Amino acid sequence: MAKTIGEVSVDVHRKAGGKLGTYSKVPVKTSRDLSIAYTPGVAQVSLDVFNHPEQAFDLTLKKNSLAVISDGSKVLGLGNLGALGAIPVMEGKCVLFKELGGIDAFPICLDTQDEKKIIETIRLIAPVFGAINLEDFVAPKCFRIEAALQDLGIPVFHDDQHGTAIVVYAGLLNAAKVVNKPFSSLRVCINGAGAAGNAVAKMLLGINVPHGFSRVKEVILCDTKGIIYVGRKDLDSEKSSLAAKTNPRKLKGELKDALVDADVFIGVSVAGALKSEWISSMSKKPIIFALANPTPEIMPAVAKKAGAFIIATGRSDFPNQTNNALAFPGIFRGAMDARSTRISKRMQMAAAQTLAEMVSSPTPEKILPPLSDRTVASRIAVAVKKQAEKENLSRVK
Amino acid sequence: MAKTIGEVSVDVHRKAGGKLGTYSKVPVKTSRDLSIAYTPGVAQVSLDVFNHPEQAFDLTLKKNSLAVISDGSKVLGLGNLGALGAIPVMEGKCVLFKELGGIDAFPICLDTQDEKKIIETIRLIAPVFGAINLEDFVAPKCFRIEAALQDLGIPVFHDDQHGTAIVVYAGLLNAAKVVNKPFSSLRVCINGAGAAGNAVAKMLLGINVPHGFSRVKEVILCDTKGIIYVGRKDLDSEKSSLAAKTNPRKLKGELKDALVDADVFIGVSVAGALKSEWISSMSKKPIIFALANPTPEIMPAVAKKAGAFIIATGRSDFPNQTNNALAFPGIFRGAMDARSTRISKRMQMAAAQTLAEMVSSPTPEKILPPLSDRTVASRIAVAVKKQAEKENLSRVK
Repeated sequence: MAKTIGEVSVDVHRKAGGKLGTYSKVPVKTSRDLSIAYTPGVAQVSLDVFNHPEQAFDLTLKKNSLAVISDGSKVLGLGNLGALGAIPVMEGKCVLFKELGGIDAFPICLDTQDEKKIIETIRLIAPVFGAINLEDFVAPKCFRIEAALQDLGIPVFHDDQHGTAIVVYAGLLNAAKVVNKPFSSLRVCINGAGAAGNAVAKMLLGINVPHGFSRVKEVILCDTKGIIYVGRKDLDSEKSSLAAKTNPRKLKGELKDALVDADVFIGVSVAGALKSEWISSMSKKPIIFALANPTPEIMPAVAKKAGAFIIATGRSDFPNQTNNALAFPGIFRGAMDARSTRISKRMQMAAAQTLAEMVSSPTPEKILPPLSDRTVASRIAVAVKKQAEKENLSRVK
Repeated sequence: MAKTIGEVSVDVHRKAGGKLGTYSKVPVKTSRDLSIAYTPGVAQVSLDVFNHPEQAFDLTLKKNSLAVISDGSKVLGLGNLGALGAIPVMEGKCVLFKELGGIDAFPICLDTQDEKKIIETIRLIAPVFGAINLEDFVAPKCFRIEAALQDLGIPVFHDDQHGTAIVVYAGLLNAAKVVNKPFSSLRVCINGAGAAGNAVAKMLLGINVPHGFSRVKEVILCDTKGIIYVGRKDLDSEKSSLAAKTNPRKLKGELKDALVDADVFIGVSVAGALKSEWISSMSKKPIIFALANPTPEIMPAVAKKAGAFIIATGRSDFPNQTNNALAFPGIFRGAMDARSTRISKRMQMAAAQTLAEMVSSPTPEKILPPLSDRTVASRIAVAVKKQAEKENLSRVK
């Protein structure tokens, strides 16, 4: 019997002994090489950095190093796997950072899920890093951790939130063209109110987004208990705040009720969450983003058969891969090239627009450029860097 | 005018943008590659590790990754440079780990010098690492930090202490042969009672060392205040403890008083600490280890002229380089190959003996193998791994 992709992956990981390695960017063969890379020569480098801390960005790995940090509290769609279980995913993310963005990323998996300890630990290990990508932290803790670290002086960015929002926003800009509906007329139903669902809802509605960017007409947000509405008893503060800004028709009920007349379904939830029979209740030419990883909310063939006009997933093995990997390498590359102190909302919107513009004639099978297009990251990087400079967030003189 | 080695080093660091990079050990070119390295394939790898934590050593970078951790409180011989100033040295150490030991090392510089926070932070970031090398922590804090982390389940080793002791011990075994004095007859004066001085004194005297290894006759330890003796008022607990085990003739006074009739001077202190006129008061055929970095306690030419028979420094640009780099790559390689839970004293002694035995006919200019001999680490690794297995510290079934 043929091996599953999971079994093949385990074999590959075992054979290679993990995925990430380190290497020296300077020669270390001769005695003189060592005198330059290490003692006695390195003493002068350390003194220079000590006397001019900003030089760390010129003379050390801080120039191009990024930490992918997780506590393993929400690994892919698998749940709370803890620090060790998170390592393969974080290593994979690092590999993508290097391959797509040319960034020297290193994974850090934290042996705690305590919010205060997480924040303090990240602060304490920040000196060697030029940027920090937060990954697979469960909501609502993830919002507070990211907010608490914005003063670190380097970009700290929770990709599960904003990376997802940016790619979905870009994909939806093009999907709307394909189905010939104005973006601003779209009714969107989002299933999953965690990190990604929250960020997608906000960006589509223009919450915390500067004026001048397109917004959809309506978002209805569902979690495992159904539609989120003002007054629902079990909402945390983050969901309460979103309840007030979504669901203008004040619907109650389940996901299937929210889907009636919706133009768009966006799943950032779990495998199988979207039943094929519900698709027929949606508006004409339904747009489906089934982004649960590793198994989507509905399989593309099933969705098509049920009437979906456009179907996108997070996976490399189907069309319309709506994966954060389209955004984060270029966003961080641009932010780090600018030595930006953070990644602003305008920088994120610049990334989304650049991404959408890369598909000049969108079709049902192509609303986003493929991950295999290696110009994606560099084009986004240029736009993001330019925006950082425009906002005076850049440290480069 | 020709550039100094420090200026050349700064140029090299600036041009390369630091020294350390990361790379993928698996292919990430095609869509299928990505399905294996990342989602969906990686999900199975994460589940395997979650269900069998020991598999982290087979399926993730933990197999071959090491953290070089510092708080920058005592960088080389330069003093307290803090986290940023420490980065170039820690990167250099990582580069040596890779080049000499094949170990994927990554630097972590901590933005705190508080002992409790240091210990907690190291615990919290340990999951992705297969071993931890503590570097440039000031004494006596360094002793307590290392001791507190021995239960982590991976080797945690303060190289400034034990690495130095191992290489000095090996060098002195051979130096004693060259001057034709029994090792057990040697009177040794050590200047510097920090991490390295403490560890060298202990190893030479056989303190915490199992029976069966040669010990010197006498050690007199000096710090910046002079000779350490029982009853000196300003000693911390670590120095008090050593006072009772060293200086059997109960000398008081300065370094120059301690040097009268000494066979060996070992400097782990600062540039220029050894005056050439004091060498003539030493016993016949004086052995000088002037190990301060980047500038030794006395320059080799000056020491020779003053009567030194053997002179060793920590530097690559003089003979008899007595540098930890002769020990730590092989020690960690052996410990990690064995998946040892720690680095025992017997493992350290096995490394020292292997190192000494690599010079079959020692001479005044060659008491240790050169760093350029790339078999050093592999030979030490074999001996260290064997010893770990003998002591049942190995996790490999």
